[in-house]
Amino acid sequence: VRAAMASWARAVRGLLLDVSGVLYDSGADGGVPIAGSAEAVRRIKASGLKLRLCTNETQATRENFVRKLQGMGFEVSVAEVTAPAPAACHILRERGLRPHLLVHHDLVPEFAGIDQTNPNCVVLGDAAENFTYANLNEAFRVLIGMEKPVLLSLGRGRYYKETDGLKLDVGAYMKALEYACDVEAEVVGKPSKRFFESALAEMGVPPEQAIMIGDDIVNDVGGAQKCGMRALQVRTGKYRPSDENHPDVKPDAYVNNLAEAVDIILKQL
Amino acid sequence: VRAAMASWARAVRGLLLDVSGVLYDSGADGGVPIAGSAEAVRRIKASGLKLRLCTNETQATRENFVRKLQGMGFEVSVAEVTAPAPAACHILRERGLRPHLLVHHDLVPEFAGIDQTNPNCVVLGDAAENFTYANLNEAFRVLIGMEKPVLLSLGRGRYYKETDGLKLDVGAYMKALEYACDVEAEVVGKPSKRFFESALAEMGVPPEQAIMIGDDIVNDVGGAQKCGMRALQVRTGKYRPSDENHPDVKPDAYVNNLAEAVDIILKQL
Repeated sequence: VRAAMASWARAVRGLLLDVSGVLYDSGADGGVPIAGSAEAVRRIKASGLKLRLCTNETQATRENFVRKLQGMGFEVSVAEVTAPAPAACHILRERGLRPHLLVHHDLVPEFAGIDQTNPNCVVLGDAAENFTYANLNEAFRVLIGMEKPVLLSLGRGRYYKETDGLKLDVGAYMKALEYACDVEAEVVGKPSKRFFESALAEMGVPPEQAIMIGDDIVNDVGGAQKCGMRALQVRTGKYRPSDENHPDVKPDAYVNNLAEAVDIILKQL
Repeated sequence: VRAAMASWARAVRGLLLDVSGVLYDSGADGGVPIAGSAEAVRRIKASGLKLRLCTNETQATRENFVRKLQGMGFEVSVAEVTAPAPAACHILRERGLRPHLLVHHDLVPEFAGIDQTNPNCVVLGDAAENFTYANLNEAFRVLIGMEKPVLLSLGRGRYYKETDGLKLDVGAYMKALEYACDVEAEVVGKPSKRFFESALAEMGVPPEQAIMIGDDIVNDVGGAQKCGMRALQVRTGKYRPSDENHPDVKPDAYVNNLAEAVDIILKQL
């Protein structure tokens, strides 16, 4: 790994980190930090590299999300987070869309400034316990009732790992609504190219000088590579050994965890 | 319609009827019969035509399903019903599969004779209120934990109409699990060719002498036509005017309801 990375890691000026599965493992209890990750974030900042948290987290406002991370010992701030809900609000305003929300209760405040009367689109996030039979039917009825259904999905992840086991992610519910209404969702969040480009613009770093570090072979690694970044897959979080035989996506390198990634990258500088 | 059908309706010896949306509209209150349908069933039987109820109903055992229909005035019996759960039990036994069930509570007795210990497949039906976040995650975990996930889906309908509105059907949840586990479900029920062929064999009528009458453009009409049957779409149940512009499927004729279909067919005999 080190030898392979030596050739290109020297040029790096910024790191984009996925959060769940890289910094911590999420769960009903709020989650637990992954060993070495808090120290790794401190070392990135001390090194002068730019840092951006690039997350598909949609179970909390950025404020609460960052507060949780700080509580686990991570030195991060709201200004360092690129997340789907604010990106969706930007799109809603731009196109005059009034959303029916099927999102996590704790995410609702992110949409406070958006007109939600007489909906002309559905915004789907990882609603977790809000993914009830009744709520899914309601979102479906709103969509199918439109002349041209518009579905914005905050991410398209298949599943994620919490401390009590794997959970279906927003992408599974997106597929259910896509099929029922015969529409294609517009994905806001990773692996959307526009989303990665926003994160890079916010860092002020071009893709060829940035490295994405994530646990999701498709949404983190594949998405970042399509934007011209290098991408590492950590063997934490939702990583599974079968990812290493993925038919379409091959990370630029595998690392056991964030601490090892940072260790190798900083040694190249 | 009558002129178009005259040429081929004379050869008919058997009718396959979809049930929900053709005989009655379902709903939390048990549903209400569609005007003229009970009389139409009586007329089919009096005519000497063979009759088969070909349903993707998976919210009740055949016994309870037929009892409900009888209560609404339909002269039908359990022996006249082709339904997905018994077809699935046949497949499970044939292949030594032990199912984890995500089905409607009232369907569970259909699987009473099947070994369900240490599951090596998931059977998905229209679980309705059992489509909880917890149950979907559990079925997902069973599937993703298999070396080669096997998912049997009792139908692949997109949605159906109940008296209190449209509801997502089993196909939407099938798509969610297919996507999350990167598998393709095996569909038991309409529009599977094997399922229509079973219904025809049970009637003892070849496809060219049978007519399917249904409200679902894809699963009733398209599926039956692929088996060599003629198929009529009724303008009741989940029928929507946009069905008449379906890109792939064109019924042999449209009728306003079952009563009109039977009227026309019996006049040709």
